[in-house]
Amino acid sequence: MSAYHPLTETEAIQIARSLPDLFSGGAELTSREIGDGNLNLVFHIRDAASARSIIMKQALPYAKVVGESWPLTLDRARIESEVLMLEGALCPGLAPKVYLYDPELALTVMEDLSDHVIMRKGLIEGNRYPRFADDISTFLARTLFLTSDLGLNQQEKKERVKQFINPELCKITEDLIFDDPYRDADTNSFDEAIRDEAEKLWADGELHLEVALLRHKFLTQAQALLHGDLHTGSIFIKEDSTKVIDPEFAYYGPMGFDIGAVLANLLLNYAGQEGWKSDTADRLAYRAYLLDTVKQVWSGFEAKFRALWEQQGIDRLSNNAAGFQEVYMKQLLQDTIGFTGAKMVRRVVGLAHVADIDTIENSQAKERAQRLALAIGKALIKLNRRAVTIDEVISIAEQQTSTVQA
Amino acid sequence: MSAYHPLTETEAIQIARSLPDLFSGGAELTSREIGDGNLNLVFHIRDAASARSIIMKQALPYAKVVGESWPLTLDRARIESEVLMLEGALCPGLAPKVYLYDPELALTVMEDLSDHVIMRKGLIEGNRYPRFADDISTFLARTLFLTSDLGLNQQEKKERVKQFINPELCKITEDLIFDDPYRDADTNSFDEAIRDEAEKLWADGELHLEVALLRHKFLTQAQALLHGDLHTGSIFIKEDSTKVIDPEFAYYGPMGFDIGAVLANLLLNYAGQEGWKSDTADRLAYRAYLLDTVKQVWSGFEAKFRALWEQQGIDRLSNNAAGFQEVYMKQLLQDTIGFTGAKMVRRVVGLAHVADIDTIENSQAKERAQRLALAIGKALIKLNRRAVTIDEVISIAEQQTSTVQA
Repeated sequence: MSAYHPLTETEAIQIARSLPDLFSGGAELTSREIGDGNLNLVFHIRDAASARSIIMKQALPYAKVVGESWPLTLDRARIESEVLMLEGALCPGLAPKVYLYDPELALTVMEDLSDHVIMRKGLIEGNRYPRFADDISTFLARTLFLTSDLGLNQQEKKERVKQFINPELCKITEDLIFDDPYRDADTNSFDEAIRDEAEKLWADGELHLEVALLRHKFLTQAQALLHGDLHTGSIFIKEDSTKVIDPEFAYYGPMGFDIGAVLANLLLNYAGQEGWKSDTADRLAYRAYLLDTVKQVWSGFEAKFRALWEQQGIDRLSNNAAGFQEVYMKQLLQDTIGFTGAKMVRRVVGLAHVADIDTIENSQAKERAQRLALAIGKALIKLNRRAVTIDEVISIAEQQTSTVQA
Repeated sequence: MSAYHPLTETEAIQIARSLPDLFSGGAELTSREIGDGNLNLVFHIRDAASARSIIMKQALPYAKVVGESWPLTLDRARIESEVLMLEGALCPGLAPKVYLYDPELALTVMEDLSDHVIMRKGLIEGNRYPRFADDISTFLARTLFLTSDLGLNQQEKKERVKQFINPELCKITEDLIFDDPYRDADTNSFDEAIRDEAEKLWADGELHLEVALLRHKFLTQAQALLHGDLHTGSIFIKEDSTKVIDPEFAYYGPMGFDIGAVLANLLLNYAGQEGWKSDTADRLAYRAYLLDTVKQVWSGFEAKFRALWEQQGIDRLSNNAAGFQEVYMKQLLQDTIGFTGAKMVRRVVGLAHVADIDTIENSQAKERAQRLALAIGKALIKLNRRAVTIDEVISIAEQQTSTVQA
């Protein structure tokens, strides 16, 4: 069965049965394919009797986007499984357990998290997650610090850079986030109602300079092993648990890109609240919760990252040079803010949107949400190199909200 | 003969004889081992009758420095030969031709350049090289631009990053340039006469911050394929020809590191002139020549790099974002100045010195040269993030010269 081919459900069950210690000998396994079929097959394999279950994720050799199909490396399955195992080792409990990786089949067998929900869905439903800011800031601080030149043997780090060179998936980010939204590209997708805003993006020289600088950083700065696609659709969550999934975009890049992905998706949901909470007080309260989460994610990250530096910093000069940590953390905040903005803009005018905004039924509310997301995104991009504190992000969100509503 | 072992001269001749199109069938080849035996065997193979000759360089599996021997990867021979071929393709005539690379033997067979001299020796002898600034600025502009995300397909660039991951040789740079000189390290080596200056280096917090930032850039910024060790001992030269050799330290790093290596070594020779030209007018004139060369190398590099960008720039956003090229070139100048300074300081107090200063016989002149090199190096490091023009480098050299002589 080992030559690559897309698995059938019967084959998936056969493989599941062969794994040690997961299911009892006579277990009656059922399989359900739950992937969206765009990039991967995802089998949910379950033994009703013991209520045990696993996920089997198999990469497909193509990606289907807007009806088109283009070839995509199966090596992403290796990257995904290796990163999941590394994340699990660095942050116990914050990534799904990996039971098996089969390189021939581009198959990863992992812990079933179906008692969690996808965080984007949870936020759209208006839920609050008391553990989230603490968990995700731990995840960010530990994965980023401990794979960087600050926390990992610097020669071993170079081998990791090599291990996670990921040209094809980086290309998707480079095009869809750092290029297409800023020109009249075929891949762009936006509602006619906001064509004026799209056209402004294409002509905004100040914005283009900042995006070019962020793009250059994404292309060249091998700072830490990134998840690479850390939006709220890559996070499984429940009241007492947070699990980061789907690191197939992982590569060595600028730390701020991962932190920015988290903040951007909180702020996209914030913008989407134009359409979700009909009661004004409810909306205000939920938005306050989201902004508070933005602040807590950054503050938690910063505190934990600095603590790791104090306790586990391996770079003699960086540890001892007075002022270095301050310069470093300020640069990280600025990068984070710039990438947050870039990840918001592309979700409104670029190829891939977010359900937080796209599924709003009331077209006026949806348009307000889109304009608000764009306004916040652009302001953050323009702020990035001058930013000093996370409070500026909160202020921009609040200001732009009153402007859009005025 | 293919399993790795250090070659004898007889074996070297045998291999030379087997190469097509180099020597005639009946040629009587002689071999002379001309390496210093620290890192590599170097055979000079010659056919007296035809006056044809080649160089065979074989990596040794260890490095001998200050009597100690430590293991060193043979993979550096692969990196060296692959980079030589790439440099030759990007800059025809500016790197030796490679006739053969044998991975098993860690052996590179290449063009014999013994009609050239090592540039460091030429400068110590007080020679001038009319083609140098033009040639080296072409070499820098083309190798750096055309291997960067500005000039090379960005997915292919990532494969090159992977191909040239070079942990062991980078480690030497990280230790000897960006760490040891700034602490009381065993590897340091300096004359007792300048102990006061060494101790000042170990206590200078402002300097430590700047060096930590430069070190971080060296560790993380995969901007272009660097030569990695571009001092005047890695340049063969004659009146009408310049050849860059020995790229075994090559890896993807910050462009300014290569440009800075060239400038630093011109300035080290400038400092060394305390000991070489006894006639004041001669010394002044030669120093003016060196400073003019510093300026021409940068200006030539900048003009050619910008021209390549206009003609062969492949990054849409970088090409079109108004102001991006200015920000980029300013950052390059600043990096160059910082790395120039770091490469000067380490040559006075660190493990590896330069003959331009070390071989000065008059101890007072030698001490003045060392203090001058340190003063220029420190001032450049402290300037780097504020620098605006290459003229500041010239001014610093001139100012420090009058201070040391006062």
